[in-house]
Amino acid sequence: MSQGVEWALHTCLNLSWVDAPVPTGTLAAFYELPPAYLNKQLQALVHAGILASVSGPRGGFRLARAPQAVSLLDIVAAIEGPEELFRCDRILDRGPGEHAGVDYRQSCAFARAMRGADLAWRRELAGRTLADVRADVERAHPESPAGTRARIAELRQG
Amino acid sequence: MSQGVEWALHTCLNLSWVDAPVPTGTLAAFYELPPAYLNKQLQALVHAGILASVSGPRGGFRLARAPQAVSLLDIVAAIEGPEELFRCDRILDRGPGEHAGVDYRQSCAFARAMRGADLAWRRELAGRTLADVRADVERAHPESPAGTRARIAELRQG
Repeated sequence: MSQGVEWALHTCLNLSWVDAPVPTGTLAAFYELPPAYLNKQLQALVHAGILASVSGPRGGFRLARAPQAVSLLDIVAAIEGPEELFRCDRILDRGPGEHAGVDYRQSCAFARAMRGADLAWRRELAGRTLADVRADVERAHPESPAGTRARIAELRQG
Repeated sequence: MSQGVEWALHTCLNLSWVDAPVPTGTLAAFYELPPAYLNKQLQALVHAGILASVSGPRGGFRLARAPQAVSLLDIVAAIEGPEELFRCDRILDRGPGEHAGVDYRQSCAFARAMRGADLAWRRELAGRTLADVRADVERAHPESPAGTRARIAELRQG
């Protein structure tokens, strides 16, 4: 999985603690990330309806949905796309036997088993929201929301 | 996940149906795979103790363990290595706050959530053996073992 997933997860959490839109440069500076590459991830999150992009001098990105309506799977899928972890290339098409009308992505016992594991992974990620993770973070680090807001305000000035 | 996983899964299954070792060239020809690249996967499976390599004019590869002692996770891990699906790059090290003595791979709430999903995926793959898949295949396609043996014998002659 790409680094972009980690950037997107943490950026979405930070945006859940601020009210006003935050521009790419500030979000990138927060974790010393390359702005152009972070911007690609932000656009992907907008495309997925997780963030909204606000234009204008006070523009930037904000969460488009409540944190309890954003699952970790939503964020992962926005960045990584809908592909399954295991891609069946239908190797059996080139093996012995009659292949007419057979779609091995559906019928191959390995493809099915790998898909079952993929679904277990997705189920876990779908069952955990940004609000859940935020609650964990706030429990362990009650200073995080204010610290994040202060750092974003400081970077905005800079 | 790399194509090598698909090659390894099917090659291990085929080897479970034959008694004598099968050389790389024959295993590659079975699915029209590039022999040198398949050989890399076969060596990885030997390294993981899933296959055994037999030298000599009648040499090749055979299963080193009974099919019920080889899980799909064993094969995936042999090819892909032990890395988790999500790699935590400890982005929080570069955010605000005090980081001394903190390992975010352990303490970050996102890293923990992603690891939970990874474990669900691994649990599924670990709970399914080559013998399970073989039983599924033989139920749906009772001709598969004999067909595989015949095709391997034919490719050996060629």
